Amino acid sequence: MAKLREECGVVGVLGDPEAANLIYLGLYALQHRGQEACGIVCFDNDEKQERAILHGHKAFGLVGDAINREILEKLQGDIGIGHVRYSTSGGRLLQNIQPFSFRSPRYGHISIAHNGNLTNAKIIREELEAGGAIFSTTSDTEVFMHLLARSRRPELKDRIVEVMGIVRGAYSLVIAAKDVLFAVRDPFGYRPLVIGKKGNATIVASETCALDLLDASDYSEVQPGEIIEITRTGRNSSFPFAATKKEFCSFEPIYFARPDSYLFEDSIYDLRKKMGEELASESQVEADHVIAIPDSGMPMAIGYSNKSKIPIELGLIRNHYVGRTFIEPSQEIRDFGVKLKLNPVSEKIRGKKIILVDDSIVRGTTSVKIVRMLRKAGAKEIHFRVGSPPITHSCYYGVDTPARKDLLAAQKTVKEIKELIGVDSLAYLSLEGLKRALGKDSYCFACFNGKYQEEIFKDVPFQPTDVNGPGLSSLEN
Amino acid sequence: MAKLREECGVVGVLGDPEAANLIYLGLYALQHRGQEACGIVCFDNDEKQERAILHGHKAFGLVGDAINREILEKLQGDIGIGHVRYSTSGGRLLQNIQPFSFRSPRYGHISIAHNGNLTNAKIIREELEAGGAIFSTTSDTEVFMHLLARSRRPELKDRIVEVMGIVRGAYSLVIAAKDVLFAVRDPFGYRPLVIGKKGNATIVASETCALDLLDASDYSEVQPGEIIEITRTGRNSSFPFAATKKEFCSFEPIYFARPDSYLFEDSIYDLRKKMGEELASESQVEADHVIAIPDSGMPMAIGYSNKSKIPIELGLIRNHYVGRTFIEPSQEIRDFGVKLKLNPVSEKIRGKKIILVDDSIVRGTTSVKIVRMLRKAGAKEIHFRVGSPPITHSCYYGVDTPARKDLLAAQKTVKEIKELIGVDSLAYLSLEGLKRALGKDSYCFACFNGKYQEEIFKDVPFQPTDVNGPGLSSLEN
Amino acid sequence: MAKLREECGVVGVLGDPEAANLIYLGLYALQHRGQEACGIVCFDNDEKQERAILHGHKAFGLVGDAINREILEKLQGDIGIGHVRYSTSGGRLLQNIQPFSFRSPRYGHISIAHNGNLTNAKIIREELEAGGAIFSTTSDTEVFMHLLARSRRPELKDRIVEVMGIVRGAYSLVIAAKDVLFAVRDPFGYRPLVIGKKGNATIVASETCALDLLDASDYSEVQPGEIIEITRTGRNSSFPFAATKKEFCSFEPIYFARPDSYLFEDSIYDLRKKMGEELASESQVEADHVIAIPDSGMPMAIGYSNKSKIPIELGLIRNHYVGRTFIEPSQEIRDFGVKLKLNPVSEKIRGKKIILVDDSIVRGTTSVKIVRMLRKAGAKEIHFRVGSPPITHSCYYGVDTPARKDLLAAQKTVKEIKELIGVDSLAYLSLEGLKRALGKDSYCFACFNGKYQEEIFKDVPFQPTDVNGPGLSSLEN
Amino acid sequence: MAKLREECGVVGVLGDPEAANLIYLGLYALQHRGQEACGIVCFDNDEKQERAILHGHKAFGLVGDAINREILEKLQGDIGIGHVRYSTSGGRLLQNIQPFSFRSPRYGHISIAHNGNLTNAKIIREELEAGGAIFSTTSDTEVFMHLLARSRRPELKDRIVEVMGIVRGAYSLVIAAKDVLFAVRDPFGYRPLVIGKKGNATIVASETCALDLLDASDYSEVQPGEIIEITRTGRNSSFPFAATKKEFCSFEPIYFARPDSYLFEDSIYDLRKKMGEELASESQVEADHVIAIPDSGMPMAIGYSNKSKIPIELGLIRNHYVGRTFIEPSQEIRDFGVKLKLNPVSEKIRGKKIILVDDSIVRGTTSVKIVRMLRKAGAKEIHFRVGSPPITHSCYYGVDTPARKDLLAAQKTVKEIKELIGVDSLAYLSLEGLKRALGKDSYCFACFNGKYQEEIFKDVPFQPTDVNGPGLSSLEN
Repeated sequence: MAKLREECGVVGVLGDPEAANLIYLGLYALQHRGQEACGIVCFDNDEKQERAILHGHKAFGLVGDAINREILEKLQGDIGIGHVRYSTSGGRLLQNIQPFSFRSPRYGHISIAHNGNLTNAKIIREELEAGGAIFSTTSDTEVFMHLLARSRRPELKDRIVEVMGIVRGAYSLVIAAKDVLFAVRDPFGYRPLVIGKKGNATIVASETCALDLLDASDYSEVQPGEIIEITRTGRNSSFPFAATKKEFCSFEPIYFARPDSYLFEDSIYDLRKKMGEELASESQVEADHVIAIPDSGMPMAIGYSNKSKIPIELGLIRNHYVGRTFIEPSQEIRDFGVKLKLNPVSEKIRGKKIILVDDSIVRGTTSVKIVRMLRKAGAKEIHFRVGSPPITHSCYYGVDTPARKDLLAAQKTVKEIKELIGVDSLAYLSLEGLKRALGKDSYCFACFNGKYQEEIFKDVPFQPTDVNGPGLSSLEN
Repeated sequence: MAKLREECGVVGVLGDPEAANLIYLGLYALQHRGQEACGIVCFDNDEKQERAILHGHKAFGLVGDAINREILEKLQGDIGIGHVRYSTSGGRLLQNIQPFSFRSPRYGHISIAHNGNLTNAKIIREELEAGGAIFSTTSDTEVFMHLLARSRRPELKDRIVEVMGIVRGAYSLVIAAKDVLFAVRDPFGYRPLVIGKKGNATIVASETCALDLLDASDYSEVQPGEIIEITRTGRNSSFPFAATKKEFCSFEPIYFARPDSYLFEDSIYDLRKKMGEELASESQVEADHVIAIPDSGMPMAIGYSNKSKIPIELGLIRNHYVGRTFIEPSQEIRDFGVKLKLNPVSEKIRGKKIILVDDSIVRGTTSVKIVRMLRKAGAKEIHFRVGSPPITHSCYYGVDTPARKDLLAAQKTVKEIKELIGVDSLAYLSLEGLKRALGKDSYCFACFNGKYQEEIFKDVPFQPTDVNGPGLSSLEN
Repeated sequence: MAKLREECGVVGVLGDPEAANLIYLGLYALQHRGQEACGIVCFDNDEKQERAILHGHKAFGLVGDAINREILEKLQGDIGIGHVRYSTSGGRLLQNIQPFSFRSPRYGHISIAHNGNLTNAKIIREELEAGGAIFSTTSDTEVFMHLLARSRRPELKDRIVEVMGIVRGAYSLVIAAKDVLFAVRDPFGYRPLVIGKKGNATIVASETCALDLLDASDYSEVQPGEIIEITRTGRNSSFPFAATKKEFCSFEPIYFARPDSYLFEDSIYDLRKKMGEELASESQVEADHVIAIPDSGMPMAIGYSNKSKIPIELGLIRNHYVGRTFIEPSQEIRDFGVKLKLNPVSEKIRGKKIILVDDSIVRGTTSVKIVRMLRKAGAKEIHFRVGSPPITHSCYYGVDTPARKDLLAAQKTVKEIKELIGVDSLAYLSLEGLKRALGKDSYCFACFNGKYQEEIFKDVPFQPTDVNGPGLSSLEN
Repeated sequence: MAKLREECGVVGVLGDPEAANLIYLGLYALQHRGQEACGIVCFDNDEKQERAILHGHKAFGLVGDAINREILEKLQGDIGIGHVRYSTSGGRLLQNIQPFSFRSPRYGHISIAHNGNLTNAKIIREELEAGGAIFSTTSDTEVFMHLLARSRRPELKDRIVEVMGIVRGAYSLVIAAKDVLFAVRDPFGYRPLVIGKKGNATIVASETCALDLLDASDYSEVQPGEIIEITRTGRNSSFPFAATKKEFCSFEPIYFARPDSYLFEDSIYDLRKKMGEELASESQVEADHVIAIPDSGMPMAIGYSNKSKIPIELGLIRNHYVGRTFIEPSQEIRDFGVKLKLNPVSEKIRGKKIILVDDSIVRGTTSVKIVRMLRKAGAKEIHFRVGSPPITHSCYYGVDTPARKDLLAAQKTVKEIKELIGVDSLAYLSLEGLKRALGKDSYCFACFNGKYQEEIFKDVPFQPTDVNGPGLSSLEN
């Protein structure tokens, strides 16, 4: 794992007879948010819209491999949701692939897909199991299902509000039933969620690049704390909780989101270029070229080059055909894993002073190998520039960070890291520089400064008094 | 098919007990030369080196998917060859996957892998079949095998010389038997072939990027017309035919070869940058940014930007997860195929004058879609710049060109193409500009100017008088 | 479907470090009870036996195809259960493959495998869902799980008793947790269940043939209404409900059970021979040979031949290699499906008077084809003898009977059936004859006489008053 | 390997637009002759019947698994041949699956399928390879192809005659080209081959059971030494070689052929019953029952029971669901492999004197296990009766016999075998008894008496003087 990893992407569609197709394409565009597995469910209403059959497909693998035409043709219906995931410690289990679904006597089937991470899932789960609930996955997200199923509120939307009062953490959700689609975002707004139109249909997705692929229009963000109820006749927005500080994940603009996506009306590509420009302002150095570590370092390298007036070169070429597996020879090939993916263009390295730009350093092991490879290719000086601050803390909001002992910057000073990586100079973008580049005050920087929202560090108890209705009362028994 | 397609890459290894592993990695690095199928054979000599068992594996798919550790462990032996291929009209048949092997009473098994295309394969095949030969593939390459098997020369090398006297066309070959590896290149040198050392082992490969991955050293080119015989005790080079003009494929530096490879001591990346610079010199225009069509247009775009001083931007973002298949919705999404792969960064397009750089135009259908997508994203002016001359003629030397009726530049003038694509201006690099960028006189430009080597246009007869030995005499019957 | 189909077979093992292997072999021996899918779970206790990891594997296909060595090696633990199934209307869904498991805060994981059918599963399920329970299968068996999870009794055995007080119908169960295995049979004893020893281990299985394969000893039956609690230190038997009439399925000796199994100390093979003898006594006729419809008709045909002194011949040869699928030519081949499986030995048919013996007739479609084939082969007279009475009623206790409209004997008289099938005479074994052959009064004959246990015809309500403990009280909300 | 194994079955069809379907079904009926792999090719003539496209499919596995509807639909054409095979030492290679095909400039594609074994294949192959021929399989059958391709005779039939003059051994062949089908049988007639009509179509197959399934009529045998040329206008029979003694394999009636097939107008089932009757006459003994080792011992057991008047019982029950693999527990289960397949019915064994009937003994290892299992089940006396003589010699005509050291009767006397197997008495059918049962003098008994046709023991040279035409002259070089 050379990079931090986003855990999920979600898509929801209501009002298009080819909902499954649109979800499929939306997931295709969100593939960078999760490559382990994908799933789609659709609600196929009968003519009178009294009953819906729930069609579903889940599989491991990339969207384009796991889903084919024959499958899509079976996923009839004009409402549906989809999910791409990257597996965390919960493990690579078929039953953990979302969307999750259950049948409620009142509403029929209800399906849910989740991007984020709950901080009190474990304790809620234990309480529910003690009351006789049977869990069939190891995923946080199943807690939502059980709480929705147990609620006594007659309206599905009120059940969602009730559940939002119980769970803590990061969640951007799409929830579908036979005649409704909900887009839900936690009050801090950790993970992105956008909404748009395509003809008569409404599309919800994690990023705008999915709306782009679908030729959607009228984009807007689902706001932190917002519940949007989408039916065939329109949309209804509500904010059942008091407004709070926004805590949008700053790693979305740094690395996770696709550069062609927009967040808060900002172009991700431009934000990255600005990070590169700030980096150049903060830690200028003389050199022959700027070289990006492809592909994620490229926008920052362009920003760095623009600001510093040092020309950019493609000094590292990425192998586009790195397959699922590779087998190393037993005889050593130095830095083999990196060489499979990247090869230097000697012409641009030998005897040159180079500025090497990357978006972030997590464990540093890949950086060490790349630098060693460039040294072997004859680089005269290597100045490593990182477009984000040192990552010193774990994320509890849906990003798979390594344990602190494996987080390089949590263990070593910048000077020590410079020595370890073996470069002539090393500079990270400062937190202030990052804030200047982002230009807004609504971000979470906890992985850089450890300032988490309070409830993370309390062992958040499951408090039935939070629950007003009878739904969860049986848990008290 | 938006691009011309190379048909093959080859690797050969002699002298490493893990030959299969090295071949596997070499093919990995050459994957851009053929993604349909791959194969490896190894010669597993017994202790006294009297007999060798031939182990082989062939499969459809990328190297990293088609070959796994278990397979590699079975491919014992210190000599072997491998092949990646892209299927041409011969069709997607398992038996067409190379290397091809046969057993000769004198030498035991002999295996062959071929990059290129013969121009007189059909007529030779018919003659051989009339004499009772049984072909088991639909590939040109099988002709080599039968001619080698039929030859009466006692030495394998002499058989190769004899066969080179019969076949016409483009061929870079690796040929292995139980104690020898041959690297062979046709006298015109249409396709690349390089050789290097790794410890005691000798490595032959289509491009230097394969040698790089293997940490090889002492690179040199196999010369046009050269036969290199590699044994455990050394190498022996010979040039059995008179020297002739070199006709190295100019599309290798334009598009096929990986930018980190070297050809004739020239860096491919630098050659492409020079093409971009020549293009800027020839057809400068005012604009806000230079934007490459990723990824192949990038080096030329950097060259164009350098020369013109117009900044480069990543205005088109490539989706890195385009899977094997995708399913289009029945409702139209304009330019769907292109949108799956590329998405514009609106910030850099809307209201801007842009210079769009690509390496070549084949049919033009993709260009039309990209331009339409950029127009929809709000581009004010689009100036299309192509880093190579108009392709007007088919290739008979191992490149899969479309029929002339589908070659855009064979059918239309530049002005007509500009109208068709819908850009504000269009310029190709001139042939002279290309020659300046390449800087050497040893290239084939037949796809640009139709100047083929003579024998292509004659219906080259199979001439038994070319054959001195008795090997082919039975064909005269 | 030419035959009635049994729905399941179960195996349980406690006390053998290779429990999974023994379960696998037991399922192998019970494959005739369900060929669609199979599953195994094992409880892998840590050294102090404080915690157990639950390992499981489920797959479609025959045991020998679906489970391999690698899988078995992962199924560590000395306690486990297994299941083979044939899918009913619930459908061919992966999640319906048993054993089912859930986690209880008190006991850890609990797994259950079920042979039989509940008659009040639907109404219980609806009540549970109304209370917030989430079902993840479409199988009756899941009801057991939820009722066990909801029960408030501290002891697992008491929970099982409580659940037995709620459910109605046929069930032979194995239930395992980290240190205990239960063998449970419904009070009427519809389905078989036997128990034996193998060294220190205890084995529970649907039939004795599974114990035979495992070299087990000390066989006995789990009695109707019995709960046997098996731990590492011994067995404990209890009968929490008042004794009632036994209703053992008479189709087990007629067709389902393997002829080498024993039931109630009776050899199945011998029971079948006796049915044949009774049949001969009741409906003797002159003929040249007795011919069985292979393979299930063979024991009855031997009995018939013995009693009647008419010699038996193998007049119909079964194709042992009928694969999973076959494709019929579009041109008609008469009685194609039957001919694929059976071919007459003309020598024994042409010009002969034959007595054709089968165990039962369900729809009659196969019988029509076999008779037509024998006529075409030249049979002079065909006297059809059926070793069981006409099937006139559906089964609600775990046998997949067709709807009454498709049950031949529910729609037509014996005379009409004789005409339909096209035989010279037709006789079924009388119910009295069957009773004589079985020799015991503990059987259910409902499919022959419609005498069901009462609760089948009431729409059995879910009556919380049946429940003495607090476990289900939350359902009343 | 408990039994000798037949190596192949063949089918040919001419004149039915659904030829592939008929071949598929014919192979289905011949599956007992080879379960490892199967293949079909069809000749799809254009309207004017000037050219034919050859469609083919080959795969490992049973016919019903390896071929599906989609595949059959692609196998267009009204002429075709098919093959089922069991792999011999040649190995489990895809390229060894028949039919084999090649292209001849004169005839277009020619395909061949072969049941049998050549005794001089190796030497011919070496000569052909020395002349430059390239073999692509390790199968004897490929020799036919090369000899046909090399022949200079203008007529395909004359080429076949020429090749029959060169090869030695056992062969029943079907050979197809675009407008002709040949049925060919070696002069000794080792392997069966029959021919029949179905409407306008002609069907050739290894056994009559294949014709039965296809509703064919007008059955006859292809005679030893006969070449039947079948075209759309009729059949032409010729016998180019002088008549010789017939050497039909006696193991076909003993074990290989399906009991419902006919050979030489004899019913296989009846021949087996007669062997059982002869066996009873030769070695009568007092006992309670006759018990067959299922399924192949059953017809002989019925014969034995008829003759001896001792009743037959199904004392050993076969598990019908023995899958492709099974995994043995590491703790010993005695005679595990046999128990998986067979289980005794204790009622018929305990305290009984039994006569156990099997068709043959090869290595004896299975017999040992069955007898031990019956002893454990309580048998009082076991009298083993074998329906064929002791197998003392290897077969060179298409049967996969073990090496002589593994042939029980080649190593031990009957008395020693009795001791080894552990029975109270043992008797084989005498060779005279077998001859009486077969009733004809046209059989090969070499595996019982070592009387081979002469050429087997000479290292048969490849004699070009046998060849009259110029076709093979190049081999002399």
